[in-house]
Amino acid sequence: MKIEQKGKSNVKITDSFWKKRLEVIRDHVIPYQWEALNDRIPDTAPSHAIENFRLVAGEVEGEFFGMVFQDSDVAKWIEAVAFSLENEPNEELEQIVDEVVALLGRAQDENGYLNTYYQVKEPKNRWTNLRDNHELYCAGHLIEAAVAYYQATGKREFLDIVCQYADHIASVFGPEEHKLKGYPGHQEIELALVKLYDVTANENYLNLSKYFIDERGKQPHYFDLEKNERNETKPFWFNDDYAYHQAHKPVREQKEAVGHAVRAVYMYTAMADLASKTNDESLKKACEALWDNVTQKQMYITAGIGSMVFGEAFSFDYDLPNDLSYTETCASIGLVFWANRMLNLEINRKYADVLETALYNGTISGMELDGKKFFYVNPLEVQPDASEKRNDKRHIKPVRQKWFGCACCPPNIARLVASIGHYIYTQKENELFVHLYMGHETQIDIAGNQIGIVQKTNYPWDGNISINVSPKSDQQFTISLRIPGWSKGAVVKVNGEIVDHEPLMKNGYVYINRIWSENDQVELALQMVIERIQANPLVRNNNGKVALQRGPIVYCLEEVDNGKNLPSIFLPRDAELKAKFEEDLLEGIVIISGQAERIEEAGWEDKLYRPVDDHTRKVEIKAVPYYAWCNRQPGEMIVWVNEKR
Amino acid sequence: MKIEQKGKSNVKITDSFWKKRLEVIRDHVIPYQWEALNDRIPDTAPSHAIENFRLVAGEVEGEFFGMVFQDSDVAKWIEAVAFSLENEPNEELEQIVDEVVALLGRAQDENGYLNTYYQVKEPKNRWTNLRDNHELYCAGHLIEAAVAYYQATGKREFLDIVCQYADHIASVFGPEEHKLKGYPGHQEIELALVKLYDVTANENYLNLSKYFIDERGKQPHYFDLEKNERNETKPFWFNDDYAYHQAHKPVREQKEAVGHAVRAVYMYTAMADLASKTNDESLKKACEALWDNVTQKQMYITAGIGSMVFGEAFSFDYDLPNDLSYTETCASIGLVFWANRMLNLEINRKYADVLETALYNGTISGMELDGKKFFYVNPLEVQPDASEKRNDKRHIKPVRQKWFGCACCPPNIARLVASIGHYIYTQKENELFVHLYMGHETQIDIAGNQIGIVQKTNYPWDGNISINVSPKSDQQFTISLRIPGWSKGAVVKVNGEIVDHEPLMKNGYVYINRIWSENDQVELALQMVIERIQANPLVRNNNGKVALQRGPIVYCLEEVDNGKNLPSIFLPRDAELKAKFEEDLLEGIVIISGQAERIEEAGWEDKLYRPVDDHTRKVEIKAVPYYAWCNRQPGEMIVWVNEKR
Repeated sequence: MKIEQKGKSNVKITDSFWKKRLEVIRDHVIPYQWEALNDRIPDTAPSHAIENFRLVAGEVEGEFFGMVFQDSDVAKWIEAVAFSLENEPNEELEQIVDEVVALLGRAQDENGYLNTYYQVKEPKNRWTNLRDNHELYCAGHLIEAAVAYYQATGKREFLDIVCQYADHIASVFGPEEHKLKGYPGHQEIELALVKLYDVTANENYLNLSKYFIDERGKQPHYFDLEKNERNETKPFWFNDDYAYHQAHKPVREQKEAVGHAVRAVYMYTAMADLASKTNDESLKKACEALWDNVTQKQMYITAGIGSMVFGEAFSFDYDLPNDLSYTETCASIGLVFWANRMLNLEINRKYADVLETALYNGTISGMELDGKKFFYVNPLEVQPDASEKRNDKRHIKPVRQKWFGCACCPPNIARLVASIGHYIYTQKENELFVHLYMGHETQIDIAGNQIGIVQKTNYPWDGNISINVSPKSDQQFTISLRIPGWSKGAVVKVNGEIVDHEPLMKNGYVYINRIWSENDQVELALQMVIERIQANPLVRNNNGKVALQRGPIVYCLEEVDNGKNLPSIFLPRDAELKAKFEEDLLEGIVIISGQAERIEEAGWEDKLYRPVDDHTRKVEIKAVPYYAWCNRQPGEMIVWVNEKR
Repeated sequence: MKIEQKGKSNVKITDSFWKKRLEVIRDHVIPYQWEALNDRIPDTAPSHAIENFRLVAGEVEGEFFGMVFQDSDVAKWIEAVAFSLENEPNEELEQIVDEVVALLGRAQDENGYLNTYYQVKEPKNRWTNLRDNHELYCAGHLIEAAVAYYQATGKREFLDIVCQYADHIASVFGPEEHKLKGYPGHQEIELALVKLYDVTANENYLNLSKYFIDERGKQPHYFDLEKNERNETKPFWFNDDYAYHQAHKPVREQKEAVGHAVRAVYMYTAMADLASKTNDESLKKACEALWDNVTQKQMYITAGIGSMVFGEAFSFDYDLPNDLSYTETCASIGLVFWANRMLNLEINRKYADVLETALYNGTISGMELDGKKFFYVNPLEVQPDASEKRNDKRHIKPVRQKWFGCACCPPNIARLVASIGHYIYTQKENELFVHLYMGHETQIDIAGNQIGIVQKTNYPWDGNISINVSPKSDQQFTISLRIPGWSKGAVVKVNGEIVDHEPLMKNGYVYINRIWSENDQVELALQMVIERIQANPLVRNNNGKVALQRGPIVYCLEEVDNGKNLPSIFLPRDAELKAKFEEDLLEGIVIISGQAERIEEAGWEDKLYRPVDDHTRKVEIKAVPYYAWCNRQPGEMIVWVNEKR
């Protein structure tokens, strides 16, 4: 079997915004998580994730500890390390991973099986509870990690391990009579198998992924069949038949996002992958319908998804309460994956706009600026008292946490940020689509010609981007620049000359086809203004409110800047709003300020209700980027601000 | 022991508003509940409440069925019947009650004990779990019922039963060394024992009530002691140490309402009773602090209380979310009890205003106009989809239910409405305070002189009240009329002549002291206008919103009148609002109408967010009394309306 080390990112991030985050991942998150995986963090519940593998390898004595999906923490950590190594080699870290990989090898069964929970706790019950027990999910993360590590280092050992495991899984599941007709309760392996196919070109993996997707939701329902086999009688806890797992009906019949949001977007990602790899038109249509449903009816302005804690799930169209949202970090990360794959199906800025919104808002909000604490839930309105005292808001933590019992989000954000360079481009033969603007250098192969590219920008704080394009030799090809949906106007120049770009626009991209020569200079100036954004009036709780946005950055008001009781602030429609870069604030951000009115609390002391008799005072408000909230004193936060019209 | 049949209401309600409700209680609620208690309602889970007593009496075979507090359903039903008999004798009904009373007598133990759950299920475990198992609560309801039935009919049998039971309880609980130092997990018996004292003049009952109140919340904590006795190790499910039962600290140290709202107000009612009966100043102070906390910081505009489903409880100051409220019918009923007792401590309209708000809004909203269906939870904002699809809003039923597994609210509203006449007056020697305005006739004894009183009014639809005062012989005494807090002005006339009432005002009451003669005529004209009410700005979710109120009636918008998506309606501050009586609508109500603006949904089809670009259209809105909502097609409802300023 021929394996190419393809898909490696040659992007070197030089961007002032992202470089800091990459350093935080490298310097804090990866080392901290390694300590956590090895149970060396004081005053924290042990992870036991590495120890579980040692246990299976017979190198220590003891009991399995952790979630059924504990293995995936190790996998996601390796994947983050792999992406980090792409950016910057690190021998010491590579050595650690090599040792973990060797341990995984020793823990792997003869037949390829590798799951510490089942190997230790229930060796006889493998593949008997796909619905709940995350076996295929963990396998998927191992595969993703192995692919990333192989791409970053060229080392095959981990890839061999997961290929053997995937081969074993393919021997267990499939259409043949003796095989199980199942599919995972938590989707993940589907997208991972496509990645494995990408690096190995082994179509078995693509077919297995397709099998899992195609089989899903068929009747009689596999989850019922295996439940009967287990002699389990109690009803499933979530509403509706397996909508929680997006297994309530076949995927091609699904038009509305339902159930657990992370599972949903991981599955949609794989569906989009398969649609493009297999030219499956019906799958593409399903992806498009689901995309429109999520982004036009079920997505917060931060690109957070999942509006209820029950099931960590989607609820229903336009139901986007700010103070009850779930908006899990992992779900927004999954939305990035999905958007990225939709761009493979069709170059359309509607996908890249959401990808960008998620990257600059709902994903990185999950991590403290110093990388030491994390949000699982990224709400749009926080009142600490409510989080403390109301059971229905207890999932909304007013401060980030060090680590979680279910530690999915911290390593997920680490692998996303470390792989940021993968999301800048889509290449289709001799077309290069530029989705994201961030300082970086890279080499891209177009028809055998190496094209050096250097992008410079202060994005997201201003909209000026310069791109140096240097092919080794002159070559005709297309560079397509995304003009973000938020931009009020754009000026495109090539070598100093303005390009009349409107006729070159298609689906939000300016297609510049020309013969490119060394040191050609592309300049893009996006008009970045402060926008008051309104929500569709069917989003009940946002009527009469605006959110502030500038470029891709969504803003919020914090108590530390604006005092307590933020909902008593009313922003007049005509109030001037100013943007200003503050270098020393929150690692350098553009703040938005302006004059608003605040309802006077004085005179209300002993009254709860009274006939209208407003007293307001003028106040200066200060808004900061949503992603950076809760990096100073804890307190209230709102994204949607009452408006005075 | 001398027992007087005192406390009987001689009030005959002739009021167009309340008479209909009394008839509904008589004609539908009481007969329906009797069928329910006897398990004769098809397609409904059986109550078994009567059957449980038969079981104990040894008259049938079988098993106990129902809640641990199932007995209280029978008690509350008898109490409702008793009050109904006061209004209108009914031999058939009285006969049924007599038979039930005889059954209770046969079920009662030799020593006075009477609780079917323990008698059948756990005869050896009596008084071992006061915290959870409602033994004293059920006893309290039996006592209340017996007192009411005695007052209504003069029949002593039931009273004798509960006296014997109360004597038994007094032999079990108390300060003496051999007695248990406990008190109920669900307060109720405390206020019942005061009622029993009132009719029997037996101070043991007053002292036992006082003992329960005084003992509450002391350390070491009785609930811990009995828990240890039970060898129970699991922690109590609610936040904080027994705040759920208002037993987290001694009652005199409690300044903020916490925990289960019904338990709280039942306890505060007893505290106010004891404060006035025993002249306990420290208890009075605690009542006042708690009153101010509840009514100034934790009460919905409808007099609903309890803002979270978890624990059916208070949450914290100013936390009054409209779409998550619990606002149990029983809690507002308890607030009526408490307000009534506070008026015994001090004549102040702040108590009567809340009493009135609860009566016309948050209590009767719990019952369908025809008396056939009931709300347990009385929310201030309803979106049926959210109730159906969001687990955190599932307690908010978009339509009233026939009956409940925990059937506390339907009989509670029945007994409240049936006893409405008891809340009109407070008499203090030769002062008669008129709290409520409703058509009725009565005879009141002032210093041995019978005073005939006839009140006529169209209240709550207009503010004109006439009162005919006819003493048997001329007599000097004071009639004090409450001028409600909502009134913008009042004109008081006696025998056609305007009284300059301002100098006669004290704490919201006009004190008219004169020699009254036959057919003296008092007229009171309260200015009843439509008010836009604002909430204290610390009530986060009501900033920028108004509620409409006219007289004591709080209004709401329903989907049936105003279409879907009610939060997209904005009511301009200067829009004229009109009140109009509609005889054929909802049994005759005053509606409020006016012109508002509605955010256009057209043009938003495929968008969730966009820069501000409002399009509004003018719409006519129609508001109906909150209590009458959900008596037509089900749909959305809001009390707090967005305002355009």
